[in-house]
Amino acid sequence: MSEPSTAPARPRVVIIGGGFGGLAAARALADEDVSITLLDRANHHLFQPLLYQVAMAGLSPADIAVPIRTVLRHQPNVRVLLADVQGLDLIARHAVIDDGSYVEFEYLIVAAGAKTNFFGREDALGRHALGLKTVDEALDIRRRVLCAFEAAERANDEAVRRRLLTFVVIGGGATGVELAGALSDLSRTVLSDDFRAIDPGEARVLLLERAERLLPGFDPRLAVKALEQLRELGVQVQLGSAVDRITERGVLIGSELTPAATVIWTAGVCGNELGGALSVELDGSGRVPVRPDLSIAGFPNVFVIGDLARFVPEGGTAPLPGLAPVAAQQGRHAAKNVLRRIRDRPSESFRYVDKGAMATIGRSRAVAQALGGRLRLTGLLAWLAWLFVHIWFLIDFRNRVSVLLNWFWSYIAYRRGARLITGDRPWELAEKLAAPPPSSRTTDVAAPK
Amino acid sequence: MSEPSTAPARPRVVIIGGGFGGLAAARALADEDVSITLLDRANHHLFQPLLYQVAMAGLSPADIAVPIRTVLRHQPNVRVLLADVQGLDLIARHAVIDDGSYVEFEYLIVAAGAKTNFFGREDALGRHALGLKTVDEALDIRRRVLCAFEAAERANDEAVRRRLLTFVVIGGGATGVELAGALSDLSRTVLSDDFRAIDPGEARVLLLERAERLLPGFDPRLAVKALEQLRELGVQVQLGSAVDRITERGVLIGSELTPAATVIWTAGVCGNELGGALSVELDGSGRVPVRPDLSIAGFPNVFVIGDLARFVPEGGTAPLPGLAPVAAQQGRHAAKNVLRRIRDRPSESFRYVDKGAMATIGRSRAVAQALGGRLRLTGLLAWLAWLFVHIWFLIDFRNRVSVLLNWFWSYIAYRRGARLITGDRPWELAEKLAAPPPSSRTTDVAAPK
Repeated sequence: MSEPSTAPARPRVVIIGGGFGGLAAARALADEDVSITLLDRANHHLFQPLLYQVAMAGLSPADIAVPIRTVLRHQPNVRVLLADVQGLDLIARHAVIDDGSYVEFEYLIVAAGAKTNFFGREDALGRHALGLKTVDEALDIRRRVLCAFEAAERANDEAVRRRLLTFVVIGGGATGVELAGALSDLSRTVLSDDFRAIDPGEARVLLLERAERLLPGFDPRLAVKALEQLRELGVQVQLGSAVDRITERGVLIGSELTPAATVIWTAGVCGNELGGALSVELDGSGRVPVRPDLSIAGFPNVFVIGDLARFVPEGGTAPLPGLAPVAAQQGRHAAKNVLRRIRDRPSESFRYVDKGAMATIGRSRAVAQALGGRLRLTGLLAWLAWLFVHIWFLIDFRNRVSVLLNWFWSYIAYRRGARLITGDRPWELAEKLAAPPPSSRTTDVAAPK
Repeated sequence: MSEPSTAPARPRVVIIGGGFGGLAAARALADEDVSITLLDRANHHLFQPLLYQVAMAGLSPADIAVPIRTVLRHQPNVRVLLADVQGLDLIARHAVIDDGSYVEFEYLIVAAGAKTNFFGREDALGRHALGLKTVDEALDIRRRVLCAFEAAERANDEAVRRRLLTFVVIGGGATGVELAGALSDLSRTVLSDDFRAIDPGEARVLLLERAERLLPGFDPRLAVKALEQLRELGVQVQLGSAVDRITERGVLIGSELTPAATVIWTAGVCGNELGGALSVELDGSGRVPVRPDLSIAGFPNVFVIGDLARFVPEGGTAPLPGLAPVAAQQGRHAAKNVLRRIRDRPSESFRYVDKGAMATIGRSRAVAQALGGRLRLTGLLAWLAWLFVHIWFLIDFRNRVSVLLNWFWSYIAYRRGARLITGDRPWELAEKLAAPPPSSRTTDVAAPK
């Protein structure tokens, strides 16, 4: 592993992470005389903006994931390794991977991404909430939500059924808004014909947001529109609502318990743990502060990009948000700076070109903005724009036709494409959801704070 | 759970299993004045004949699975429950499900299916072999096979790489033949562009069969054709080859070890454990002997159908094979006999109408027979017939268009649709596949018999 198969004279570039940032960097180096190794813990690149559709049984994982090595198959200067990077030695210039072997580099681009953040309160918040950052987490949510419906169909007790059919989404950012809208759609659709004992009126979707508005990255007028559209869909939005505790029984706000079998957490992300291996002080969200050229202090050959980087634009105060376009643009920029370094030229500062943002709300509603908020769309028009942009970006995927058809079908026929409960012994999960262990009942109610 | 929501005067029919048999029975009772409860451990009906395509990353699980309650949504006299049947009381006439509650019946149709059978040698054969009966098992195989390629790309040692790229399929029935053909296709396709360190010539697919021929249910001439076609695809078929032991290191035949990281077992199935609850003596494969009308001895109101039933046709000696058409025909027949019993008429004997059998071999080859073997097809023509029949039967599924497109794409573009490694920490699996624990090495080699 320590010697690449290509000629050692070519500069070795290691890229950690095959997300939007890492892939963009690798592709930007396609025609260059470098030897690239891309390391990722998954074998697939994930079209993360649509992950909530997998969680909501609208798409299959394969519709939004493609093997990284397939994406890069025609780029002979890259080799892709499925590996977990467990350490970095920036002085000796190598990464240590899971089997203990070294992967050496002259240049390093770290694009390891973000993970769900419970702000140090894993015990109170994390243990019974579901995050949404990976395919497996999305499948977990799908399993839980579908099992809750199954358990509700079996339940004889009215209170139990109500709890099973209450779904709480915490966090009013784009992911939370999209999930809540899709959950409401799913409940209405699924409940319409398929069940016998469940009354459609019983399903509740709650969206809880700590701040006084939704969608912090968006124009405030769009946030209000999003709120209206969610309410039209029947989502109960509670702003200014900080959750104190999540238990098997539900969500505690102050001492008030909202019984719910399914709680999904989208209220925060933080940098991947690999940030800690970079000998730089991280910010409060575990992100790595980077210099204007995206390198880190003291190591002009080491770049950090995407969700893991804390990049504050010149003259700005807030760091750039963790969005796919930011990561992709930074990936291309880091690649360019690697090349400049190789050619002994000074690196250049990164400038983000904001192309806009969008969030979908259920089957035919969305909000979208472009040109720094000067162009704003809502409703069906925004949804069509959203659809177009997402299909367009899936163009690199083999399965855009399949995705289109799945959507088409699921929007037209009001059905869901991938309503599949996988994993061992789903009936036990259904049972557990219906009747959480009695011990936790007492604890939870007795210790709200 | 003990009282159905419908009027108790209507005869209650409980169907266990939502496979081809159970669904056919439920549908045959659609317009009848009965109250049906269908119990299944999964929430989905599975199009099992295509399960090997999921294992080989050609299709997503959702392409071949559909929620049982969606299939039956327009049939108001059925309710579907996700439940594990843990006991049956045929005298008191109820099933006991996982939460301890009873589901009562006047008529019972047991269609619980089959599971992988290691003939009582789980220790020697079952522990390191992968079965293929459920979606989760298919995903397991997919994960293992794709991880073996990933581990091979990382491996420095020639012998390790050879072992990782050796895939053994045990059992030369339809499933084994189809798997081996698809594996060979997958290896050739995957290896072509995507990897850097693997030499395509290294991948080996072995198909081991204990008997002296393949495809026992087929005309012998077709079995020979299948053998030829598999060999054209590069599959190494060994007939008359009985495996003595399967370990983490490979397969032992006598004392000869064939090193292989992936061993798939399709050499036998036996009846689901529920057969044991029917107070009837089971046959050697755990199947329930049924009478000509499909009911069991002593209980004219209890019917067993499909893979779980041992039905010997009148004048025949061999029981009917475990095939989807057998189960579906038996399902409809059992439903008809339930109705005859309700109306105090004598039940009728079941007669199987053999519509033929087919098995696909890789991308464009197959064997097919109809009219009791008088009509035989091989090669591309058989493959097209196979494609047509399978798409046709998927017509009940919402996703036939999506499946068609996936296939079309994967056959035309020589790519694979769902090459996704899911599950936690795939790099650890890759590592384990590359280096099985040293303790088992000694044991395995020292104790071949």
